[in-house]
Amino acid sequence: MIDLVALDADDTLWHNEPLYRTARDRFCALLGEDYAPELIDERLYETERRNLEHFGYGVKGFVLSLIETGLDLTGGRLGGPDVQKIIDWGREMLASPVELLDGVREAVEALAGEFPLILLTKGDLFHQESKLARSGLGHLFRGVEIVTEKDAATYRRVMTRYAVTPDRFVMVGNSLRSDVLPVLEAGGHAVHVPYDISWVHERVAPEALADAHFHEVAHIRDLSPVLRRLARSGSAS
Amino acid sequence: MIDLVALDADDTLWHNEPLYRTARDRFCALLGEDYAPELIDERLYETERRNLEHFGYGVKGFVLSLIETGLDLTGGRLGGPDVQKIIDWGREMLASPVELLDGVREAVEALAGEFPLILLTKGDLFHQESKLARSGLGHLFRGVEIVTEKDAATYRRVMTRYAVTPDRFVMVGNSLRSDVLPVLEAGGHAVHVPYDISWVHERVAPEALADAHFHEVAHIRDLSPVLRRLARSGSAS
Repeated sequence: MIDLVALDADDTLWHNEPLYRTARDRFCALLGEDYAPELIDERLYETERRNLEHFGYGVKGFVLSLIETGLDLTGGRLGGPDVQKIIDWGREMLASPVELLDGVREAVEALAGEFPLILLTKGDLFHQESKLARSGLGHLFRGVEIVTEKDAATYRRVMTRYAVTPDRFVMVGNSLRSDVLPVLEAGGHAVHVPYDISWVHERVAPEALADAHFHEVAHIRDLSPVLRRLARSGSAS
Repeated sequence: MIDLVALDADDTLWHNEPLYRTARDRFCALLGEDYAPELIDERLYETERRNLEHFGYGVKGFVLSLIETGLDLTGGRLGGPDVQKIIDWGREMLASPVELLDGVREAVEALAGEFPLILLTKGDLFHQESKLARSGLGHLFRGVEIVTEKDAATYRRVMTRYAVTPDRFVMVGNSLRSDVLPVLEAGGHAVHVPYDISWVHERVAPEALADAHFHEVAHIRDLSPVLRRLARSGSAS
């Protein structure tokens, strides 16, 4: 039996990473030819990783990391108008339309008729709520859980909150690091739906997957048969 | 009967507004004597209010608003090192120790023995969770609700989530705008615990309070008798 199916949001239901890629391309163009894109990427990721414990995930922290990386690379000579441009990109990212992945609306509508669904996503509370509202999918979920980090403890807390046992819980998402490995650690099932690009922070080393038993589907519309099989078998994933 | 007591966090359990005041004072000092503090305050609040719909509440949005106000006031001439300083203040604010208001630990411990408590606060999910963890009060709450806005709809949602009726729900906090008026609108009880300073955004016009029936206590340690009276009377607040 399956009592609860949790769906990730960013890059599972709607496009997200491309917005960050676009901002990063604009940032490279802003800094100009003196700085190789590879160097910018490396320094930006270093700044983001260092800031993660202070700022958490999301656009506002990303904007602050862009500004700091720009100041760092230019030795503090990044000009006021450039700083303003970066903040404006952030506002654009936050306001940009929610673009559902192809076929997601129909797939989630069909799933909601078969299984109790919740949305389970990490990131900025304010922005995620705003995206969910704009997605038009909100009514399909029995609950919405926006969390600061998706680790095994978080998954256990969510299972407790919804009073489901791990063997009857399924997480579905694009990130092996956030949507798959910690769910398995908490004793649940996981279905990986890869997205074509991913932030380096979300990647995992192949050896981490050696003993990981999870399902993978190419598209969320292929999810229903997998969930039905899981529901029938009651076996471990 | 009282089935659920929700406590606000910032400036109700721990000091918060003074951190913003300190940053604002540093910001005035950074801009120098060319700009009157009143002008800076006014422009900063304008920027914050405009950004609220994009950034929501919290330190990261505040930092971005400080930078934008600085750029705006100086005509874009705010220098890179100054921008870096402002970002550093933000990191300091986020990392600064959680200072409980005097007597709060004992008061909340005693309350938790008498009434089911939850924490109900707005703001940045990441920062609020981090503050709660560092406060050492987490174990006293049956639930933690971090929300993007405290309006009547939010209070109704929380009541539904905890399966309590409005007449058995009490909200306790320092903000008339966020912790008192919308709870009354949702049919619940409210207890106001004033804090000595408040952000202009949280203030309400006196006429808004004309028909508002709520309790006020000077300190959270005076809360218990009020709650007991409410529990006995079962009357409207």
